[in-house]
Amino acid sequence: MPETSLIFPADEYRRRTEALQREMARGGLDALMLTTPADVFYTTGFLTRFWESPARPWFVVVPVAGDPVAVIPAIGAELMRRCWISDIRTWNAPDPIDDGVSLLADTLAGLVPRAGRIGIPMGLESHLRMPVADFLRLQDLIAPRRIVDGTDAVYRVREIKSEAEIEKIRATCAVADAAFVRVPEFARAGVPLSQVFRDFQVALLQEGADWVSYVAGGAGPGGYGDVISPADERPLQNGDVLMLDTGAVREGYFCDFDRNFAIGRAADDVRRAHGSLYAATDAALAELHPGMLARDLHRILAEALEREGAVVGGGRLGHGLGLALTEWPSVTPLDTTELREGMVLTLEPGVEIAPGRILVHEEDVVLRADGPELLSRRAPAEMPEIM
Amino acid sequence: MPETSLIFPADEYRRRTEALQREMARGGLDALMLTTPADVFYTTGFLTRFWESPARPWFVVVPVAGDPVAVIPAIGAELMRRCWISDIRTWNAPDPIDDGVSLLADTLAGLVPRAGRIGIPMGLESHLRMPVADFLRLQDLIAPRRIVDGTDAVYRVREIKSEAEIEKIRATCAVADAAFVRVPEFARAGVPLSQVFRDFQVALLQEGADWVSYVAGGAGPGGYGDVISPADERPLQNGDVLMLDTGAVREGYFCDFDRNFAIGRAADDVRRAHGSLYAATDAALAELHPGMLARDLHRILAEALEREGAVVGGGRLGHGLGLALTEWPSVTPLDTTELREGMVLTLEPGVEIAPGRILVHEEDVVLRADGPELLSRRAPAEMPEIM
Repeated sequence: MPETSLIFPADEYRRRTEALQREMARGGLDALMLTTPADVFYTTGFLTRFWESPARPWFVVVPVAGDPVAVIPAIGAELMRRCWISDIRTWNAPDPIDDGVSLLADTLAGLVPRAGRIGIPMGLESHLRMPVADFLRLQDLIAPRRIVDGTDAVYRVREIKSEAEIEKIRATCAVADAAFVRVPEFARAGVPLSQVFRDFQVALLQEGADWVSYVAGGAGPGGYGDVISPADERPLQNGDVLMLDTGAVREGYFCDFDRNFAIGRAADDVRRAHGSLYAATDAALAELHPGMLARDLHRILAEALEREGAVVGGGRLGHGLGLALTEWPSVTPLDTTELREGMVLTLEPGVEIAPGRILVHEEDVVLRADGPELLSRRAPAEMPEIM
Repeated sequence: MPETSLIFPADEYRRRTEALQREMARGGLDALMLTTPADVFYTTGFLTRFWESPARPWFVVVPVAGDPVAVIPAIGAELMRRCWISDIRTWNAPDPIDDGVSLLADTLAGLVPRAGRIGIPMGLESHLRMPVADFLRLQDLIAPRRIVDGTDAVYRVREIKSEAEIEKIRATCAVADAAFVRVPEFARAGVPLSQVFRDFQVALLQEGADWVSYVAGGAGPGGYGDVISPADERPLQNGDVLMLDTGAVREGYFCDFDRNFAIGRAADDVRRAHGSLYAATDAALAELHPGMLARDLHRILAEALEREGAVVGGGRLGHGLGLALTEWPSVTPLDTTELREGMVLTLEPGVEIAPGRILVHEEDVVLRADGPELLSRRAPAEMPEIM
């Protein structure tokens, strides 16, 4: 049994299952039905890049008592058998007539009483990874059992990371730390941004990433226009600010943070903007504590930026992190999720230097009883200049 | 306007829109509502790795007449404005109260008559990338308009690739061809499979991949056990067969094919198995023609393998390819999709050498009027041996 297919000892998964079951009991749920890569990995240890193929649905049913049951395409049986659960039911997918739906319905009917309630994550930031037509058919097949909102049961458990998970995220952050140190080796005036993106991904792999699920960034004179566009062929120029952001993956856990670099000398307004982002992150590191709400963290960051005279960027200023590049909560003025000990979060202040010209900054932290502990190595207070 | 954010001239997207609209008219649909990375990229040219974040839903509405309308998070507005469509409606996501649902409902209500029907892909291999709770709320908000099955309208159009798309897929295949040539530089006895996976990803990036969405493989004495497990730390040994499979991405288009390598001398049963896979692919290259069904291709491959005395592997023996690692149809005995000129397919025969020991082989082709044209460079008839 290769160690890598389980990632954690079975006890880790048992504790997760029990935690989900406590939330299910509290919420009056008889089972959870899970379909996404993160939820399936969280409950079983089943880790594969095969999710990249949209062809097949995968299901894990967590009953309110007892071990989870996997209802999966036969192609995954070999790998799932190396995980901790023993009840694995398979079908030959894709099947245009019945792509696992009757097997899933039978499984649910065997685990859930007729008057029972089956929760699925259906709230903010969720989706159901199965065809809608099959979901409608499933509801008919399992009636009078009902599918209801199980978002809270999943989110309240997954959002608190165990020490074992925190160590995995810390290790992935260290991979990105090491890759960011090497940026001046390949990013300089004259090199197209598309080449910088490639070389940065190479550096992440060479420093120990299993794969690189996300690289983004931007480059432009005195700031960048947006942070989600693919790289273009424009060569970097003196006066540009280059930002690289990554969600690399190691043993199934993500990092998510970015770094800025000045190509040549950083202009005064860029240095001021970077200083305000740094100060805002400092404020969050000093003031954040368990019991605050996500919107309180937004307020801390936004007020610190305003004290520095900066124009606060739109959008959220941070989010959860772990088995996915981004998890709830969202650091916005509207999110009332309680921030609790063991949550892993990104602090992601952003400012507008001028219309169409922004600067962002991101660190990864775990929230401890006495405040945030950095998982990424703190960015330098002064933006590095690549001469 | 950077060339890279559009990928194709606007006319390409106009032709796609018109093709979708012809299918919609045929199916009695007043609009299509699209939510996935592939469908959004297909209709707008909006290409970003930001989909890796599950936090935000994205919508494109294609009315039965007129240009598509984007209903997207504000963070994507800058990039979408560089695409060909002009009607872009945004909200500040994520919003825990109303995450774009009322804006989407207003958009649909403005484009679709009250008795109208809105199609979504809801069949095999599809999913809806938005929260289920929001989908239920949307249905209430737009009533009496109804959401119905629009799978065929999308699949029948997307599955036929334009010459411009075929050239993109060919270019991505060339990246993988070049990376496979370099495998003997980093894979040899004593190197752990995990390191081989990393080095292969590095080679793909260095040969021109924009990113590497998928790498899988396997290694074991005389064959491998499965093809979806993550790499383990076991060093390669003489007598192993190493298989590497990749879905690299360049300009938004995937390749998907694999190659086998013997570490040291290939055993006789391995050579025989590889020969049977090669012969089966030859049979498909010779016999496949437009008008056949997906299940006919399965029969061609399976019968050729049986003629060679091989045990046909379970699962599908090929599939569609393009904007996603795998697209419909599936090469199974059950899939009755008609294979038409312009479809890009993988030919993926697999055999069982012994219980728990398999060998697979994959090529990418485009189906022309007179038969398949290879997009990947044909694998060598004899399995390469790495001494």
